[in-house]
Amino acid sequence: MDINIPEVLAEVTAAFERYEVALVGNDVAVLDELFWNSPHTLRYGATENLYGYDAIRAFRAGRPSAGLARTLGRTVITSYGRDFATANTEFHRAGSERIGRQSQTWVRTPEGWRVVAAHVSLMA
Amino acid sequence: MDINIPEVLAEVTAAFERYEVALVGNDVAVLDELFWNSPHTLRYGATENLYGYDAIRAFRAGRPSAGLARTLGRTVITSYGRDFATANTEFHRAGSERIGRQSQTWVRTPEGWRVVAAHVSLMA
Repeated sequence: MDINIPEVLAEVTAAFERYEVALVGNDVAVLDELFWNSPHTLRYGATENLYGYDAIRAFRAGRPSAGLARTLGRTVITSYGRDFATANTEFHRAGSERIGRQSQTWVRTPEGWRVVAAHVSLMA
Repeated sequence: MDINIPEVLAEVTAAFERYEVALVGNDVAVLDELFWNSPHTLRYGATENLYGYDAIRAFRAGRPSAGLARTLGRTVITSYGRDFATANTEFHRAGSERIGRQSQTWVRTPEGWRVVAAHVSLMA
């Protein structure tokens, strides 16, 4: 299996960056687009465990749009073959000393790259 | 892409269960075996961010073996094609009310199924 084929890594990095811009700007349409529309999709958030695309979409729709700004720390994106990738990053929010971590697993679908599983937490 | 091909899902589930037994029993050899031996491998733990297989192995070697027992809650394992999978589970430890979450991304390597990225946290 080829790791980090340059054009694949570039595609996933672009999708990751698009997600980040949408997250900080609370662009719910793009956030919804980039998660896999499937009951299998899962997102563990800092304060909630969401099972299935519909639960994730409902969470986005009800989330306050304030306080989403953040600065990314170390980011590691790795692709495995042509259709699968992981994206992991640390992040910091103004006014907090805690280190955030965001993990995403990305899969290439007929509609494009999509997050199939995500986990966000603050380090203890 | 075929989701949850039964024999693939069975393989990943067996690997996931083998990991769980090794974790609770602090069977460091098996834990080391089941993580991908690569500088790309990454593990966000409850209290540490580990980059690369060597850092993960050093963490395992230095970890106290007491207090690792836990009970799994809801577990979702999903395979994508024949070579990729995600495994997510909630867990609880005796004496704590907090909900733990463990996310793993698994890849089929020539040596077998391996965790390429993991994230463990306690829900806020």
